[in-house]
Amino acid sequence: VRLSELGELGLLAELERRGLVEGIEHDAAAFGDGLVVTQDSLVEGVHFRLDWLSWRDLGFRAAAVNFSDLAASAARPEALLVSLGVPGASAFDDVVELYEGIAEAGVPVRGGDTTESPFVFLTVTALGRAERIPGRAGAVPGDALVVTGPLGAAGAAFREHRYVRPPLRVEEGLRLGRRAHALLDISDGVAVDAAHIARRSGCRVVLELDRIPLAAGATVEDLGFGEDFELLAATPEPEGFRIIGRCVAGEGVELLLDGQPAEVGGWSHFRRGS
Amino acid sequence: VRLSELGELGLLAELERRGLVEGIEHDAAAFGDGLVVTQDSLVEGVHFRLDWLSWRDLGFRAAAVNFSDLAASAARPEALLVSLGVPGASAFDDVVELYEGIAEAGVPVRGGDTTESPFVFLTVTALGRAERIPGRAGAVPGDALVVTGPLGAAGAAFREHRYVRPPLRVEEGLRLGRRAHALLDISDGVAVDAAHIARRSGCRVVLELDRIPLAAGATVEDLGFGEDFELLAATPEPEGFRIIGRCVAGEGVELLLDGQPAEVGGWSHFRRGS
Repeated sequence: VRLSELGELGLLAELERRGLVEGIEHDAAAFGDGLVVTQDSLVEGVHFRLDWLSWRDLGFRAAAVNFSDLAASAARPEALLVSLGVPGASAFDDVVELYEGIAEAGVPVRGGDTTESPFVFLTVTALGRAERIPGRAGAVPGDALVVTGPLGAAGAAFREHRYVRPPLRVEEGLRLGRRAHALLDISDGVAVDAAHIARRSGCRVVLELDRIPLAAGATVEDLGFGEDFELLAATPEPEGFRIIGRCVAGEGVELLLDGQPAEVGGWSHFRRGS
Repeated sequence: VRLSELGELGLLAELERRGLVEGIEHDAAAFGDGLVVTQDSLVEGVHFRLDWLSWRDLGFRAAAVNFSDLAASAARPEALLVSLGVPGASAFDDVVELYEGIAEAGVPVRGGDTTESPFVFLTVTALGRAERIPGRAGAVPGDALVVTGPLGAAGAAFREHRYVRPPLRVEEGLRLGRRAHALLDISDGVAVDAAHIARRSGCRVVLELDRIPLAAGATVEDLGFGEDFELLAATPEPEGFRIIGRCVAGEGVELLLDGQPAEVGGWSHFRRGS
C-alpha cells in the first residue's frame, strides 16, 4: 500500500497501533513540568511556493504555525529550533530574510541545523510552557463553541495565488486555556476541526455558519480551506470570544446556515497533522 | 553571495552576528532544569542514499545522530519528535521499517509530523536531561584527550558504498559528563573536532594518531571522514577510556604519528553543524 492511499492520518494511526509513535493525535506533545513541544515541516511545492510568498513571510509562517500549535495547548512559546534545507546555490540574503521573518514572530532561535537540499524545506520545533492544557477530549453538552478571529482569509488569498500571515494567538490561547474543555487551532477547516472535538469528546457540535466572522474577501466556501490558525474552543465561559456554535448530546458535526442544514468542504489529504 | 561559497558554519556565524540565532555553535541547546534539545536533519542525496542503506538503518541513524549530540552534552534521551518527508508513492511498509529503526534506538517518538515531499528527509528532535553539561570551552593544559571507541568505521564503509550504524554512547557521555572539561561527539573527523575544543578552550591539543583505536578495515585516512559519533573529551580523569592525546598551552591542533608531525584531512562543507 502506498502512502498516498493511506493518507497522513491513516499512516499515523497505523504507526501508533504498532507502538512506534505515541500520542501523535495532538498537535503538541506535553513533557511534564508544563513543557510543551511542537514540530512542523514546510516543504517547497507542497506547503508553499516561493513565487507566492517571500522568504521573510516563509520564515514568519514556519514559526507562526508552530506557535499556533502551542497556543492550542495554552502554552507560551519560549524557544525555537530551526532546521533549514536549501540548495547550495541559494542567495545568502534570502536566507537572512527568512531568519528575519522567523525573528518577527518574537521568539529566539536557540538551535537547529542548516543543510544542503535539492528543495527548500523548513522544520521548526517550538518549546513552550503551559499551566493547564485543555486537550480535545473534554467538551460536554452545554459548552459554547468560540473562535478567536475571522476565518477564510487563507482560502481567499490562495485563490489569488497568495498566502496571508497566520495570526499569533498566544495570549488568546492562555486566556482560553484557563477554563476551556477543548481547544485546538483551525488548520483543516472549521468543520473538520470541530469534528475532531466532537469525536474526541464524545459529543455533537452544532456549528452556525452565519455566526462565523468572515475575513475580508472571504466567502463561506473559504472556510473549508483551513490554515486560518485561529483557535477553536469548547468552553463553559466564552471569555469574550465570538460564539459560533455549541456542544450537544450525540456525535458528529451539524452545520446550520440561517437555521438550515448546510455543507462546507473539508480539506484533508496527505499533508499535515490534524 | 551563495550559500555554497559561505559554507554552513559561515552561514550560522553570520546569522548569529545579526542576532537572528543564538548559541548555535553547540550541537545541543540547554533550556534550564537540565533540559537539553537537539535537532538534526538527514536529506536524501545529501546525507544518505537509499541504495546504500535500508529504511530501517536510516531510521536508526536519524535517532542515533541526535542521541550522539545529547551524549556530547552528557544528557540522557527521553523523547523524540520525528518529522518525515516522503513521496506519496512511497510504500507504507518502508515507512514502518523506518519507524522500527527509530524504535531500535530505544526512545519513544512523542510527536512530529509526516508530509509529502519530492525527496525523503527526516528531521529528528531529541529531548534529554543532563546533570552537568561540560561544553567545549573548559579544557586546560594537562587534560587528557580521550575517545570512547574505535574510529574510521564510517569512512571505511563509505568507500564500500555502505553506512555503518552509529554507536550509542549515552552511558559513556553521562560518565564523562561528571568531570570532563570539554566534551563533544566526533562528527567532522577527530582532528577537526579536536580543533573545536582547542579554539573554544584556548589551548593546544596534541593528538597522537598511533594511539587512536582504528575500527576493523579502517586506515588512518578514514579518520578524516568523520561521522564516527564516538565521544571526544578533554578531562582530568580518563574514566577508563582510551587516551589519544593531551591539552597543552598554546593553540591549534598538533598531529603526531609515531612522534613525528602528520596530517589527516578534515571534512567540512555545507552540510551539517560541527
